[in-house]
Amino acid sequence: MQAEIISIGTELLLGKTVNTNTVYLSRILVSLGIDLFYHTTVGDNRTRLFTVLKRAMRRSDIVIATGGLGPTVDDITLEIIAQATQKKLNLNPVVLREIKKHFQDRQIPMPKANIRQALIPEGTRVLKNEVGTAPGLIIPCNEKKVLIALPGVPAEMEPMVQRDLSPYLAKNFSGNWVIVSRIIRITGLAESQVNQKVKDLLKSKPPLTVGIYAHTDNIELNITAKAESKSKAEKLIASLERKIHKRLKKYIYGTNQQTLEQIIAAVFSKKKMSLAVAESCTGGLISQRLTNISGSSKYFTLGIVAYSNQTKQSLLGIPAQTLTQYGAVSKEVAVLLAKNVRQLAKTDLGLGVTGIAGPTGTTKDKPVGLAHIALAAPRKILYQEFHFHGARAAVRQRASQAALDMLRRYFAKQI
Amino acid sequence: MQAEIISIGTELLLGKTVNTNTVYLSRILVSLGIDLFYHTTVGDNRTRLFTVLKRAMRRSDIVIATGGLGPTVDDITLEIIAQATQKKLNLNPVVLREIKKHFQDRQIPMPKANIRQALIPEGTRVLKNEVGTAPGLIIPCNEKKVLIALPGVPAEMEPMVQRDLSPYLAKNFSGNWVIVSRIIRITGLAESQVNQKVKDLLKSKPPLTVGIYAHTDNIELNITAKAESKSKAEKLIASLERKIHKRLKKYIYGTNQQTLEQIIAAVFSKKKMSLAVAESCTGGLISQRLTNISGSSKYFTLGIVAYSNQTKQSLLGIPAQTLTQYGAVSKEVAVLLAKNVRQLAKTDLGLGVTGIAGPTGTTKDKPVGLAHIALAAPRKILYQEFHFHGARAAVRQRASQAALDMLRRYFAKQI
Repeated sequence: MQAEIISIGTELLLGKTVNTNTVYLSRILVSLGIDLFYHTTVGDNRTRLFTVLKRAMRRSDIVIATGGLGPTVDDITLEIIAQATQKKLNLNPVVLREIKKHFQDRQIPMPKANIRQALIPEGTRVLKNEVGTAPGLIIPCNEKKVLIALPGVPAEMEPMVQRDLSPYLAKNFSGNWVIVSRIIRITGLAESQVNQKVKDLLKSKPPLTVGIYAHTDNIELNITAKAESKSKAEKLIASLERKIHKRLKKYIYGTNQQTLEQIIAAVFSKKKMSLAVAESCTGGLISQRLTNISGSSKYFTLGIVAYSNQTKQSLLGIPAQTLTQYGAVSKEVAVLLAKNVRQLAKTDLGLGVTGIAGPTGTTKDKPVGLAHIALAAPRKILYQEFHFHGARAAVRQRASQAALDMLRRYFAKQI
Repeated sequence: MQAEIISIGTELLLGKTVNTNTVYLSRILVSLGIDLFYHTTVGDNRTRLFTVLKRAMRRSDIVIATGGLGPTVDDITLEIIAQATQKKLNLNPVVLREIKKHFQDRQIPMPKANIRQALIPEGTRVLKNEVGTAPGLIIPCNEKKVLIALPGVPAEMEPMVQRDLSPYLAKNFSGNWVIVSRIIRITGLAESQVNQKVKDLLKSKPPLTVGIYAHTDNIELNITAKAESKSKAEKLIASLERKIHKRLKKYIYGTNQQTLEQIIAAVFSKKKMSLAVAESCTGGLISQRLTNISGSSKYFTLGIVAYSNQTKQSLLGIPAQTLTQYGAVSKEVAVLLAKNVRQLAKTDLGLGVTGIAGPTGTTKDKPVGLAHIALAAPRKILYQEFHFHGARAAVRQRASQAALDMLRRYFAKQI
C-alpha cells in the first residue's frame, strides 16, 4: 500500500506555519506499515490543487489531504475534490446539524458561510469533528483507492484520526505486516566515523533497514523492520541491534527518544549519589539539562556558572596564579572546578567544564570549540580535552553532551 | 518568477523530523517577492527523486532542493541532479580542499566517504559551508531557470542562504514588488489579551496585514506589507507599528528575531553594570539564556543553581528558619536569593527565582507553575509573583522569560 499526503494552504507556502500535521500523519502511517512516498504542499489555488490531487490519485492508493475545509472562500478543498473524483456535492443533513450544534453550544448564531462545510461529495463517510466545524471525509474512489480529507487545525484533525481514521486504515489498508522501528543513539563520534563502522549495515535491504541521521550532539541509527507480526519484527531488530552494539559499544548511550539526562537520572536514583557542577563555557546548559528531569533535586544539589575569573577565584577557590599561568580555559582549571565544586557542595561527584564557545574569546592556542572537562569522583579524577566544531550554540550543546556523557561512562565504568 | 522547494530525506516521510527548512526558505522567498507554489518531500529514492526533480524543473523557474548532500550512500542528491540536468559530475578541487580543511581543523582524518561531497555538477556555482562539509550549489539550467541544492542541516543551510543565496536570488529573480515583514514581540500577556487589544488590526486586508502567533514565552504580531518599493512597504509597516506600540506599550520587548537576552545584552553593554543570578526552578535556564550571547561574560559574572535547601543555606545564606517558616518557594526566599547572590558576586544587580516547575514538588498551597521572582538593585528590590501554565519545560521557559523581562523593564523603568 502506498500513501501520500497533500497539505493545502497558502499560509504554509508563505512560511507562516510549521507543518506538523504531516509529521503526525506520517507516524500514524508508519505504525500501520503503510508506505508513504510523498508529501506535497500546495496553496489555495484551484488549478494547482486539482493537478496535484489527480496525480496523487493516479500514483497512490491512499491520498490524505489536510486543510482548506473551512468556511471561507479561500477554502476550496471540497469543491476541487468533487471535481477530481467526479462526484456531486450534496448538502449532508447530519453534518449541517453538527455545525449548527457547534454554534448553539457556544451561543453564537451560525454564520451563513458555514453551510458550505456541509456540502459533502456523494458516497463519503464522514468523520465527526468534536472541536471545530469542518468534518473529516473518507471518499472511496474505486474498490482499491481512497481519498481522505481532514481539517488543517491539528487540534481538530488529531482526535478524528485517532478515533476513526487510524482504525479504518488498519482494517482496510494495513496489510498483513507490521513495521517496528528502533533508534540507537550514539555520542562521542562524528557521523562519518559511525558511518565507517556500520557502512555495510546501512546497505541492508527491506525487510530490515538502517538509516543514519546526525543531530547536533548525537548520531542516530534508525533500524526499521517489516514482518508479519510484531514479535517477528522485533526479533529482526534485535539481531541487528546486537551487531551495532558490538561495533559501537561505549559510544551508544540510549535508544529511541531517550536523552542523556534521562539516562543519568535513572542511574543516580539507583546509586543514591549526588552531583554538583561548575561550568563556564556551557553557561548553565549542563545544569539546565540535568534539571529538565522532574525529581533531579534528589541528586543534583548545586550548579555554579562561573563566568568571570573573579568568581572562579572567590567562590571556587581557583588560585589566581593557576588562572594566570594556564589560563581559564585549561586542564588545570577544569580539574580544580570539578574538585572544588564537589567539596563546596559536599557531593559524591563534581563536574567541571571550561572552554571557548566563541565567536569571541579565542586566542592563538585556544580556538573556538576547545573544551576541558573533568569529573571528580571519590577516589579519582577523570579528564578529557575536546575540540568541538560549529557555531556558539552547537559548541555549547556538544560540550554539555560530552560532560554528561563522561558522567554516564563513569557509572558504566567505560571511560 | 515561480519557485518550488523539494525536501529530500526518508526521515521526513517517516515523521522523524519536523521540516523547518521549508518554513525558513519560504520566508526568504516571500521577502524577495518570489512566488512559491509547491513544497514536495520525497525519500532517498533514485526513481522518485528523479521524477520529482524533472517535474519541478519543467514547471518552476527556481527549484530549491534541500538534503541528501551528506557523505553516506543514502545521500543521492548530487547524483540525481547530475542525471536530471544532464551534467557531468567533476571532482571540484576547491570543495575538496574545504572538506579536507574541515577535518584538519578538528584533528580528525578525513573519511574516504567524504570525497563524494566534492563531486559537483559542471557549471555549478558553489556556496561555502562554514559549519559542515556539504557545499551548497547553484546550477543554472538554461538562461532563465536555476536549480539550487542546499544541505539539509539547518545550521549549515541558513548561513549560506543568508550570505550568498538570498543576494543571488534578489539580484537575478526578484519581481517588481517587494514584501516586507516585521514581527513585534510581546511578553507578559496571554494570547487572548493581546488579541483583545488589537482585534480590529488583525482584520486588516492586503497590502497591509497582521497575524498573531503564540509561542511558549512570547506572542508575535506579524505585520506584512506589499508595495512597489522597500521604502513604501516600510512606511506602511511603520504606521501600523505605531498603533500597536500605543496599545501594548511596556509588553513589547523586541522586533523580528530578537530575544530578550539580546535586548538585555545591549542594555548591559551601554550601562556598564553587572549581574548575578540565583535560580532554583529554572535550573540554569536563565544563566544559559544570558550566556547564549557572545561577550556576556562582560556583565554576567555568576550564576548559581541552588537546587537543594542545603545549598540555599550554606552558599546563599538563606536562614534555615526562613526556609522552614515560608518554604523554599516563597517571596522571602526569592528576595534573599536576589540580595545574597548580588552580595556574593559583588555585582550591581542580583536576580532570584524560586518556583515549582512540576510535575512533582507541589503542595496544596503551592501548585505547579507558581514562581516568585525578585531583582535586587542598588537602591531597591523589585518582586513579583507569577502563575504559569503548562508542563515542566513550558513553566521553566516562561519563568526564565519573566525573570529576564523584569530585568529589561528595570532598565526601561517600566516596572
